[in-house]
Amino acid sequence: MIYVDKKSKLPLYEQVYSQIKNQILSGQISAGELLTPTRVLAEELDVGRNTVDKAYQQLKDEGYVTATVGKGFTVNDIPSISVDSEPLVRRDTNVEEYTEAHIGYDFVYGSMDNSLFPYRRWGACSRDALIEMEYEQVAQYPEKNGDLRLRRAICDHINKARNVNCSPEQIVITCGHQHSMEILANIFYGKNAAKRPSFTMEDPGYDGVRKVFENRGFHVGGVTVEKDGVAVSELKGRHVDLLYLTPSHQFPAGSVLSASKRRELLNWAEETDSYIIEDDYDSELRYYTNPIPSMQSMDVSGRIIYTGTFSKAFSPVMRMAYIVFPPEILKRYNDYYWRYHSQVNGFLQRTMAIFMERGYYERQINKTRTVYGRKMRALLAAMEKVFGDDVRITGGRAGMHILADFNLRDLNLQSKCNN
Amino acid sequence: MIYVDKKSKLPLYEQVYSQIKNQILSGQISAGELLTPTRVLAEELDVGRNTVDKAYQQLKDEGYVTATVGKGFTVNDIPSISVDSEPLVRRDTNVEEYTEAHIGYDFVYGSMDNSLFPYRRWGACSRDALIEMEYEQVAQYPEKNGDLRLRRAICDHINKARNVNCSPEQIVITCGHQHSMEILANIFYGKNAAKRPSFTMEDPGYDGVRKVFENRGFHVGGVTVEKDGVAVSELKGRHVDLLYLTPSHQFPAGSVLSASKRRELLNWAEETDSYIIEDDYDSELRYYTNPIPSMQSMDVSGRIIYTGTFSKAFSPVMRMAYIVFPPEILKRYNDYYWRYHSQVNGFLQRTMAIFMERGYYERQINKTRTVYGRKMRALLAAMEKVFGDDVRITGGRAGMHILADFNLRDLNLQSKCNN
Repeated sequence: MIYVDKKSKLPLYEQVYSQIKNQILSGQISAGELLTPTRVLAEELDVGRNTVDKAYQQLKDEGYVTATVGKGFTVNDIPSISVDSEPLVRRDTNVEEYTEAHIGYDFVYGSMDNSLFPYRRWGACSRDALIEMEYEQVAQYPEKNGDLRLRRAICDHINKARNVNCSPEQIVITCGHQHSMEILANIFYGKNAAKRPSFTMEDPGYDGVRKVFENRGFHVGGVTVEKDGVAVSELKGRHVDLLYLTPSHQFPAGSVLSASKRRELLNWAEETDSYIIEDDYDSELRYYTNPIPSMQSMDVSGRIIYTGTFSKAFSPVMRMAYIVFPPEILKRYNDYYWRYHSQVNGFLQRTMAIFMERGYYERQINKTRTVYGRKMRALLAAMEKVFGDDVRITGGRAGMHILADFNLRDLNLQSKCNN
Repeated sequence: MIYVDKKSKLPLYEQVYSQIKNQILSGQISAGELLTPTRVLAEELDVGRNTVDKAYQQLKDEGYVTATVGKGFTVNDIPSISVDSEPLVRRDTNVEEYTEAHIGYDFVYGSMDNSLFPYRRWGACSRDALIEMEYEQVAQYPEKNGDLRLRRAICDHINKARNVNCSPEQIVITCGHQHSMEILANIFYGKNAAKRPSFTMEDPGYDGVRKVFENRGFHVGGVTVEKDGVAVSELKGRHVDLLYLTPSHQFPAGSVLSASKRRELLNWAEETDSYIIEDDYDSELRYYTNPIPSMQSMDVSGRIIYTGTFSKAFSPVMRMAYIVFPPEILKRYNDYYWRYHSQVNGFLQRTMAIFMERGYYERQINKTRTVYGRKMRALLAAMEKVFGDDVRITGGRAGMHILADFNLRDLNLQSKCNN
């Protein structure tokens, strides 16, 4: 009998792994016996199949079991020892250190539950990308603006999922969102700006973006975030070179820019010759209603520079993002970058293209949305239970973060947390 | 009997592939027969094993043969047809178009013979990197300055191969050489330079680098390249913020910076508070003598910023390079970039780390050096034969390019080329 303790600091697969290992070493499971099929055990324990898979893989790697296709995992002939006489030591981690350092729930923003990542599919696409590229005559720098197949796949995806209206030629593949921002900072600063250009962003907003424009020498300003998005009145009649928005899920306040403000802002941009960066970083992770169409889909005068990333809904390991340029800014981009190579690895771009072409990306987004929705509901329920009226939470209907506004006067955090 | 024509415009593996396909279709090879083992056929035809492998893989993909592990390739049962009655059409290329567009020898700088790339080993390391990372709890952004294991592996490599004197902490992984240059331009420009900083480079030099510093608003100047490297006298007593050098194989002139000039330049940098970028882009590809140690290895006062890349000796597909900072500049780097994520994909960095740790990278460099040395000798011999005294070639002892100085007065290119 195996059991798992979901409150334990030890990861679930470690628990499964070490119990089976003990059973093998103590002779409770004999050589030649089949392990319970992963699917069955996962159901029994109410854990993900991935968890059981990992445990079995580790047992296999360590030589306790053998995997046979179509048959499953068979226990190898291991001389049995008394479990008590020899404490089991984990392969490469000191148990004590591990226990101390281990974080039960890691709330660092941008981290992701690694068991969600589709390792097998990604591995298969990666292999197929290599095979395809092996057949090419000459190894060359990737296409300047990114692998055309990947740009096509992204174009299809954002057209379907976000109503973005563009052609693959308008898309440039970048090394993550900050790289996208560096590119925009470069082309809007120009070679020798007689006067420093201006960059205005939501306040509060994402400092990782502010830093890029500050570093690059822009005049950086802010515009207040209200319940339905930025205060448009503060911008009235003012030109800014670039206005940075997160319309579908404001970072960090979590508000959604209302339809009327979207329209007002588009008119404002046209009237004042300003451009808007629409950062659509986690819009695919909307848990209750269907995702709100992008602001770019309402833009008829080429004022929106749309940016997306694979870091949030897919994985922060990727370091891949994209910009959709309106035609006029695309020209400026090409003027600035005509002599530059693409900075994104060719194998990686092809792998991502294949992954998207096969429909895996869409399925992955759906899976992530389901799991993250569940986690979000659990977190909100727990906070409600512990803090009750002492906390006001916004932004819990989408994405990977919430804004929690604590009533600090009435709140004794220490005592609440001990409940 | 198969034969290949090395002068044909058709790639070698295509020739092998289509002849075997014809033999199968015409019944010359019967169903059930084994194809000649790749190693044997490669020797018979005096071509790379990779060439035969590719041909066999394509036959397999198209269903003409079946691959069995430990046995080889067996011919499938294909209804035989008369070869003459039905012209063979290539899978996805129109033969005529192909013949017109196909380039027998592609001299574009930076392109690489793709058959040299170690696809199998890279694939294996890539798979193992995925497996390793699957066991990690949480997917996070890669380490800010790059995967520590990769930085260690690079540190070992450049220490052994180029005498570079550094620790992994001084290394930052970038998305290719131009990205390295953008980083240096950023940290030397600063946020709000009261006066524009100066960048001086070899003249003639690599315009892909000049462009980055021009775009970023630097005062860009040049220093004459002489037979033994840059004219040090032109720099005497003058401060420049950054001097860009390719000391081991000047691009494009091919000259080597003499030891005495190296020493003079290091003293000059120290005296005038200037910094030197040592671009060591293709130094591993030196065909006759052992590679010349890096200039960084002579630097005792932290004046050299050493940069290397995987684009030249490995593959331009990679888009991965690195900077070795002297401690003082590392501080400036960290000040500028503390809020930035790494821009290089995590899987890729781990794959490269494993590839280097297993000694594959060193072997790959040796192989590339051998093959490219042979190609270089063939090119030089051919040019000597055709142009004789009408051309003066420099830089043919290393790297992937030569500088050919034609005596245009006496030369009738058209008639020479028709020989």
